[in-house]
Amino acid sequence: MKLDNQGLLIVISGPSGVGKGTVRKALFQRSDHDLEYSISMTTRKPREGEVDGVDYYFVSKEEFEERIKNDQFLEYATFVGNYYGTPKDKVLDKLKSGSEVVLEIEVNGASQIKKKMPDAVFIFIAPPTYDALEKRLISRGTEHSDAIKERIEKAHQEIKLASQYDYIVINDEVDNAADRIMAIIRAEHAKTTRTIDEYLKLMEE
Amino acid sequence: MKLDNQGLLIVISGPSGVGKGTVRKALFQRSDHDLEYSISMTTRKPREGEVDGVDYYFVSKEEFEERIKNDQFLEYATFVGNYYGTPKDKVLDKLKSGSEVVLEIEVNGASQIKKKMPDAVFIFIAPPTYDALEKRLISRGTEHSDAIKERIEKAHQEIKLASQYDYIVINDEVDNAADRIMAIIRAEHAKTTRTIDEYLKLMEE
Repeated sequence: MKLDNQGLLIVISGPSGVGKGTVRKALFQRSDHDLEYSISMTTRKPREGEVDGVDYYFVSKEEFEERIKNDQFLEYATFVGNYYGTPKDKVLDKLKSGSEVVLEIEVNGASQIKKKMPDAVFIFIAPPTYDALEKRLISRGTEHSDAIKERIEKAHQEIKLASQYDYIVINDEVDNAADRIMAIIRAEHAKTTRTIDEYLKLMEE
Repeated sequence: MKLDNQGLLIVISGPSGVGKGTVRKALFQRSDHDLEYSISMTTRKPREGEVDGVDYYFVSKEEFEERIKNDQFLEYATFVGNYYGTPKDKVLDKLKSGSEVVLEIEVNGASQIKKKMPDAVFIFIAPPTYDALEKRLISRGTEHSDAIKERIEKAHQEIKLASQYDYIVINDEVDNAADRIMAIIRAEHAKTTRTIDEYLKLMEE
């Protein structure tokens, strides 16, 4: 019996190269739980094959800035001249309908969300070692060594922020990490702070 | 990768008749996790077949009272003229060796433990309804209707104490309850408060 009918907002974050995306994908392959992914909004142009409302919500710069003004993002950032953000209304609708919403975002975005959604569950995906992180960044093959060095330096800073998260999940093995996140979701639904009001009401009836 | 090498003290409590024992047994049947049960100490005489150090630690009244004086119990109580208690040293040894220790105790005992072991994980096993609780007490067949009425009244008081626990697990179906407790144990091991010091140390090396 589940007491809280609200879904949970699960924020998965961690340093660049830690494997957030891989862990998130492994999580969504588990068929025994209803998870929803939040679709980001962006001002960048769609690439070939990308579908509006599936890959991203594609909007104009004017619309995006209007939404920032109206506090309609849980978090947003700019990257190579384009805006990227998490639309608040879409996330809240999904949570109300009882779905868990998973956000996979950068450390800075997670900090923005913590201010707006303190009830969200913040999970820091951590590398087992800096060496493992470096290896992963090199194996991606998308960046030259200076950029990788920069990312490792940034990771040193970001790992200090792990203390602000609710959970630390080490990505030593992607399936282990996904299993641990599933356990966290189940445990959070049983947390007294989330369920006590509903339970006492139920027992009064 | 597990960060905290200490085991967790898992305190399972709830009203009489809620099925704490059944849930605990289901939990111990799961072979995928190392759980240890804390053996109580008592001044009651061993029944036929009961083994010292297996069913209980059997001690004299004098020894028990000496141990109370020396603060050697996590909790204790008297029942029908005999003492029953949880020996502190045995529990601490098991936790240090990395085992999770499961205590299945009455609500009053759980309150005593909360003062001595604030890091323990407190799980309130809750009945789905008062009717379900009454049915279970009746089906035990060990008590007459006045005693059952008294237990139900006590349950009304004890359920108000659920707010002091970390988690509420409704015992609607014993395997569901045991699954949820396993998820709680896994999630607690990933909690930042339990792991951050160890993780930052690991990353400095």
